[in-house]
Amino acid sequence: RTLRIGLIPGDGIGREVIPAGRRILEALPSSLGLKFSFVDLEAGFDTFKQTGVALPDRTVETLKKECDGALFGAVSSPTTATKGYSSPIVALRKKLDLYANVRPVKSVAPSPAYPEPIDLVTVRENTEDLYVKEERTYDTPDGPVAEAIKRISTRASTRIATMAGEIAARRARVRQGLGDGSGKQALVTVTHKSNVLPQTDGLFRSASFAALAQQRFKDAGVKVEEQIIDSMLYKLVLQPAYYDVIVAPNLYGDLLSDTAAALVKSLGLVPSANVGDGFAIGEPCHGSAPDIAGKGISNPIATLRSVALMLDFLDQEEAAAKIYAAVDGNLADGKLLTPDMGGKAKTDEVVEDVIRRRHCL
Amino acid sequence: RTLRIGLIPGDGIGREVIPAGRRILEALPSSLGLKFSFVDLEAGFDTFKQTGVALPDRTVETLKKECDGALFGAVSSPTTATKGYSSPIVALRKKLDLYANVRPVKSVAPSPAYPEPIDLVTVRENTEDLYVKEERTYDTPDGPVAEAIKRISTRASTRIATMAGEIAARRARVRQGLGDGSGKQALVTVTHKSNVLPQTDGLFRSASFAALAQQRFKDAGVKVEEQIIDSMLYKLVLQPAYYDVIVAPNLYGDLLSDTAAALVKSLGLVPSANVGDGFAIGEPCHGSAPDIAGKGISNPIATLRSVALMLDFLDQEEAAAKIYAAVDGNLADGKLLTPDMGGKAKTDEVVEDVIRRRHCL
Ligand SMILES: CC(C)[C@H](C(=O)O)[C@@H](O)C(=O)O
Ligand SMILES: CC(C)[C@H](C(=O)O)[C@@H](O)C(=O)O
Repeated sequence: RTLRIGLIPGDGIGREVIPAGRRILEALPSSLGLKFSFVDLEAGFDTFKQTGVALPDRTVETLKKECDGALFGAVSSPTTATKGYSSPIVALRKKLDLYANVRPVKSVAPSPAYPEPIDLVTVRENTEDLYVKEERTYDTPDGPVAEAIKRISTRASTRIATMAGEIAARRARVRQGLGDGSGKQALVTVTHKSNVLPQTDGLFRSASFAALAQQRFKDAGVKVEEQIIDSMLYKLVLQPAYYDVIVAPNLYGDLLSDTAAALVKSLGLVPSANVGDGFAIGEPCHGSAPDIAGKGISNPIATLRSVALMLDFLDQEEAAAKIYAAVDGNLADGKLLTPDMGGKAKTDEVVEDVIRRRHCL
Repeated sequence: RTLRIGLIPGDGIGREVIPAGRRILEALPSSLGLKFSFVDLEAGFDTFKQTGVALPDRTVETLKKECDGALFGAVSSPTTATKGYSSPIVALRKKLDLYANVRPVKSVAPSPAYPEPIDLVTVRENTEDLYVKEERTYDTPDGPVAEAIKRISTRASTRIATMAGEIAARRARVRQGLGDGSGKQALVTVTHKSNVLPQTDGLFRSASFAALAQQRFKDAGVKVEEQIIDSMLYKLVLQPAYYDVIVAPNLYGDLLSDTAAALVKSLGLVPSANVGDGFAIGEPCHGSAPDIAGKGISNPIATLRSVALMLDFLDQEEAAAKIYAAVDGNLADGKLLTPDMGGKAKTDEVVEDVIRRRHCL
């Protein structure tokens, strides 16, 4: 089977890590019976500066018509409000209805602060909340006042919670398969702030609980809890090993996943996938990192893992598992790491090392 | 001078820590020439269950007419949406126009994760943002959809940033006075998400920068930076010692202060003050902790520090300094700590120990 993958490097180090993503796909063992073809696509602040459009129609149309999945690098945000500019990744998530942003965070090794392994995934709603970007500004005697809409729908809340339940059920299955005797099955934590926002966050909460109450999740051994978002951040920092699958509205998910990334010390390790029905875009969680762009030292791990995550959601779990294992091998070995991880390796050296390990499953 | 202080224990451990706050005030050395009188006031979920009202008018009126300041314990939130119930502390902040929520976070001792001392303060806007609580729900063919308004005004953003500048200027003065040779003056970090919300968070950003550009802050040595809220949380966890004064809209401030509290391991240590012009309510950052309520083991430190913080904002800096020093003495000594801190002491024993140390300045 041939999968066609759109490549959208974006800005800054996006241009260094997306080629790494392509290389790992091309290097997958032929025994998997998978082939890939690629199409280069434009988006980002550089694209905006050149063409006046941050997300060209051609990019959206090509993804919709030709592609099975895509990889997105990173975008730079202008530091001051720039007329006509609006984040292309936020737009892409909505235009392709990629309603889930899945961000797994795993510790490399025990640390003094976190002796127990961290292995959690945030499942972030990706289409609504304050990200509907409906804002207005009006004048008052005390100066301008601005308002934004936070929108939460039953439909989006139900489908994101269902996705969280499915991810949890899969994790429970894997754990039972491993028979690691931990007795740990799977836990979904629903986060919200319904004590302050009983209607919007209250709706997210009730729709999530309803979706997660499905018998198939119970049968799979999925437990469900809830946590107010401020306490959630507090507890996440104090006992991250407790958490497993965390489902959240868009903005809280954005904040939770960056906080979780900090617990494993580098955003350079954390992948994400923007997932819709039958389509997925892999996207490293880090930004465009203008300070190191062009030096060839950006960490490709987040992108390589994002490639695997994309493959997971395109039902290529075997190929995904090979990439995860090769990346884990590189990290466990600890000899070829980029500077953000305390090493001295270049991006390319890390990619070579991971590719060398791709048969390790 | 006599200061009249409203005492609002609220729910759960609020009933254990507010009496501790009263005791430290009564125990202040008479050489300060300060007297206190107290008035007991009701608010909270228990009050709501008894009377149908979470924040009785009498409480608001008494605070407005008779009091110089107040102490607020904690409130329990109902776990399901409860008709007619709305958080009394959120209402109180707005009714008394306590526009700033000031939350200092200080580490007790260096830890392996954080060898450098953490000493930062979040200055949270306390009256608007999503806390205006303007929500509505409507039906659609796909089920109910709910919306909430996030409101950001020039006026509120300007005054909270000005307050942050004043707090930073004071910190710079204290540091210069200490002459600790660190060369560190003071830094205000403005947090927002203007890359997604250019109007609302963009307004917070521009009004904050304008307010902080005042010459008096420059003269005091206050530096100003900005950080997008997701990166802010990431950096806060990775290098909290870098941060000094963080100013944020209401919701981000809520999340930042809980995250910062986690870095010093216990919410039981973190005080806050809700501050308006000429009025302040001290409030420990922790919740009502129903799991330990009634056992007499709740940590009074957050409340004792909240008393000091309230006194600071009532221009009683000398009295405040005595309480801070006595609390720091108790913590440095480390012998009488409550269970959340790994100790075995009861609330009362900690209070006695702090009171014993009140002459240590
Ligand atoms: C760049 C920004 C618009 C984006 C977001 O807020 O979603 C980023 O922070 C992310 O998490 O992917
Ligand atoms: C209890 C809740 C309404 C409150 C808030 O969100 O402000 C609390 O979390 C706080 O930080 O004081």
